[in-house]
Amino acid sequence: MNKNEIKIFCPATIANISCGFDVLGLALSSIGDEMIIRKVKKPGLRITRITGQELPREVTKNVAGVAGLAFMKASNYKEGFEIEIHKKIKAGSGIGSSAASAAGAVWGMNALLGNPFSEFELVQFAMKGEQLASGVAHADNVAPAIYGGFTLVRSYDPLDIVKINTPKELYASVIHPQIEVKTADSRKILKTSISLADGIKQWGNLGGLVAGLFMEDYDLIGRSLVDHIVEPIRSILIPGFDEVKKEALKTGALGCGISGSGPSIFALSKGRVVAQNVTDAMSKLYENIDLENDAYVTEINKEAIRNNA
Amino acid sequence: MNKNEIKIFCPATIANISCGFDVLGLALSSIGDEMIIRKVKKPGLRITRITGQELPREVTKNVAGVAGLAFMKASNYKEGFEIEIHKKIKAGSGIGSSAASAAGAVWGMNALLGNPFSEFELVQFAMKGEQLASGVAHADNVAPAIYGGFTLVRSYDPLDIVKINTPKELYASVIHPQIEVKTADSRKILKTSISLADGIKQWGNLGGLVAGLFMEDYDLIGRSLVDHIVEPIRSILIPGFDEVKKEALKTGALGCGISGSGPSIFALSKGRVVAQNVTDAMSKLYENIDLENDAYVTEINKEAIRNNA
Repeated sequence: MNKNEIKIFCPATIANISCGFDVLGLALSSIGDEMIIRKVKKPGLRITRITGQELPREVTKNVAGVAGLAFMKASNYKEGFEIEIHKKIKAGSGIGSSAASAAGAVWGMNALLGNPFSEFELVQFAMKGEQLASGVAHADNVAPAIYGGFTLVRSYDPLDIVKINTPKELYASVIHPQIEVKTADSRKILKTSISLADGIKQWGNLGGLVAGLFMEDYDLIGRSLVDHIVEPIRSILIPGFDEVKKEALKTGALGCGISGSGPSIFALSKGRVVAQNVTDAMSKLYENIDLENDAYVTEINKEAIRNNA
Repeated sequence: MNKNEIKIFCPATIANISCGFDVLGLALSSIGDEMIIRKVKKPGLRITRITGQELPREVTKNVAGVAGLAFMKASNYKEGFEIEIHKKIKAGSGIGSSAASAAGAVWGMNALLGNPFSEFELVQFAMKGEQLASGVAHADNVAPAIYGGFTLVRSYDPLDIVKINTPKELYASVIHPQIEVKTADSRKILKTSISLADGIKQWGNLGGLVAGLFMEDYDLIGRSLVDHIVEPIRSILIPGFDEVKKEALKTGALGCGISGSGPSIFALSKGRVVAQNVTDAMSKLYENIDLENDAYVTEINKEAIRNNA
């Protein structure tokens, strides 16, 4: 390792978080990719190595490449970068696989150049990668990957990102059942209108969740982790969702819902012990119906992307 | 005054606060009614005096009476109460006139009995008065009247009220144009469904506002004071609304919107000087179009209802 090279951990992220459809996200600690970003004399951007997943190395077809190009276009850096991507987050799992790559690329480049860009600017570069991945330049995964902890995308036009306090004892469980749900499909089944009554419930819960995070009021966080709008529709695509959620809550989780557009299911708990029990119970339920699954328990990641040298 | 009698200030309140339709409210400091509550030997509840407004003294037809009866029904107090109501908040102004009376009655009774009931229980008694006043047992005015500061009604079923931090330098302007808008009419013109896209904007702003209040980030509070759903419809009922709002923002207000169901217009500002300028500018605009108006500038009331002896 030299100062022309950085090895980083790029966290998986949970978007939506029940009541925060399209606006809330959080970063995870022990699930994430590894990337190596290297400054080189030769101008331009090259992806030199990808492990763990079949992904295009052509920069304009790779989310990290597209995000990196957006970064380089805005920068006055005249030389080049090489990127290595070591994927550990599975594609299509619903925990921000594309966001980790896009965010990691621009965070690493920025670090190597002495941080000329703010986190807010990095999010905007990374969103170009998200656009390639899903057709929508959403920020609810790249924002927590870059800011760490909980983030709120208050507005897209203009883009406004707010970092929300992360309570100390909050832990996440993530269960990834081995089925495929495409983000685009998962979006298509949503209705374009909702009842005002459901809207009021949703922003009441969103307000409660944000307040609970600032006050570190775990019960309030739990009461607010309710989604009247998206979960009832999307959960149809996830086999066993209702049973897994019931099991998580029975085991002591504060709340449980769909991670991003699924199929991963997340739960939040107070304390690592409860979170571990919740993860085990959720995973076991899937094992009982012979559905293979990856199961994680992790802290909320306040550091975001970090040097992993 | 003796310990069998309490004289209290019952604050006016602003409900909705732009992005928080049906869930947010705040209490004001220098606008409010005065009430006297008295313990008497004779069982039952009587309203002995009302000044400032033509209101029924029959307890079952008066919001303070109905709220008081709910309190007494839940209490094991065997004697009676008398209530005097000295209205200063105009009925139909949109700043919680009925809520002040309902909340004041039960707060005063509770204080005289040594506070057997929690604030949360008092809100539920006071909501009975709101039900009489508008046909809907809403809590977004009685909650801030009883808790003080900013409150969030996270949920109605079950009822869940969250007290939100009040930033130190936040001041409110209130302009009451002398026109009548009935809450019921103002509710009727709302659509029963909204687009998911507008819903997302609304809960993004609600999250931003709650975060801004906790972080005391005045710019974020200002950016979040946006209502894509209700204001565009209800503002049609308020002559000059767009011009008054524009004037408020031009003069330095963080945000401006409809108070409750109107016709009062509120603005929030950082610091008393700006708030005074904003009030003056809004009031002057109405004077220029010959619309009589009451104009106020006030702190946010963190104390809620208070002993006014």
